[in-house]
Amino acid sequence: MAGKEKGLEELFVETLKDIYYAEKQILRSLPKMAKAASTEELRNAFQKHRDETEMQIERLEQVFETMGKAARGKSCQAIIGIVEESQEVMEEFKGSPALDAGILASAQAVEHYEISRYGTLVSWANQLGMKDAAKLLGQTLDEEKKTDVLLTKLAEQAVNRKAA
Amino acid sequence: MAGKEKGLEELFVETLKDIYYAEKQILRSLPKMAKAASTEELRNAFQKHRDETEMQIERLEQVFETMGKAARGKSCQAIIGIVEESQEVMEEFKGSPALDAGILASAQAVEHYEISRYGTLVSWANQLGMKDAAKLLGQTLDEEKKTDVLLTKLAEQAVNRKAA
Repeated sequence: MAGKEKGLEELFVETLKDIYYAEKQILRSLPKMAKAASTEELRNAFQKHRDETEMQIERLEQVFETMGKAARGKSCQAIIGIVEESQEVMEEFKGSPALDAGILASAQAVEHYEISRYGTLVSWANQLGMKDAAKLLGQTLDEEKKTDVLLTKLAEQAVNRKAA
Repeated sequence: MAGKEKGLEELFVETLKDIYYAEKQILRSLPKMAKAASTEELRNAFQKHRDETEMQIERLEQVFETMGKAARGKSCQAIIGIVEESQEVMEEFKGSPALDAGILASAQAVEHYEISRYGTLVSWANQLGMKDAAKLLGQTLDEEKKTDVLLTKLAEQAVNRKAA
């Protein structure tokens, strides 16, 4: 299909595949971040978000289903890069008092990528009149925003102070 | 320097180098996005943000200066991935009514990466007692948030409607 025949629905599906792939990468990376974290609070936050991520993947599968499409991911260079950076921080700052601050910052970069993607997808789903999809994606968007707020709180309350 | 001797200041400098590199990539990519955009409004928004980005790079150089360090970037896989994805969209949706929606979504992914990084840097600068740096980085953080709000507005008002 040439570019000019492609419309918003195709763009929506491409972006859905992008975030589906991204969520699966995040699901794999969260236990590593939890294991690396040195405080229990941060470990718990990552474990909780891992469970949420499983549910978010299921929601994406439901969105594919409402469109009569098989759930399929599409390699997402952005999340690959963000996850790579988080691995670098975990290696470079292993044993450092700043380790948790670094892991937390990486996790917030992940959250913001997701917030931007889900924000876009909700807006497009509404535009396309896909009410069920918009609702499912909106639930995840809210969760991602809440996770980001929680991480900011953890960072300011404890992690940064410990690292300084 | 082994991980355990590295503290928050080192993490701050590493992240500063990361966003300095990222801003330079963004500076190069914005004119391409402006050129690809099919509406004047979006083109103008990208051109305006290109000018802001130049100023944001200068601010980062000032932050390096306050620390007595030479401004230096450090390859940032996250922004490389995000920019790659925006190029893919521009190629795949060239000539499509959904092109602008796609470019806009990519630009918002860039903004959110920056918002997460500057948010982290402001928090760390405050923690480290670097008031001038916190102020400079906070100015940029505000600009990035405003740009994101503007892009959402453009998307909802015109671009998505045109694409559907």
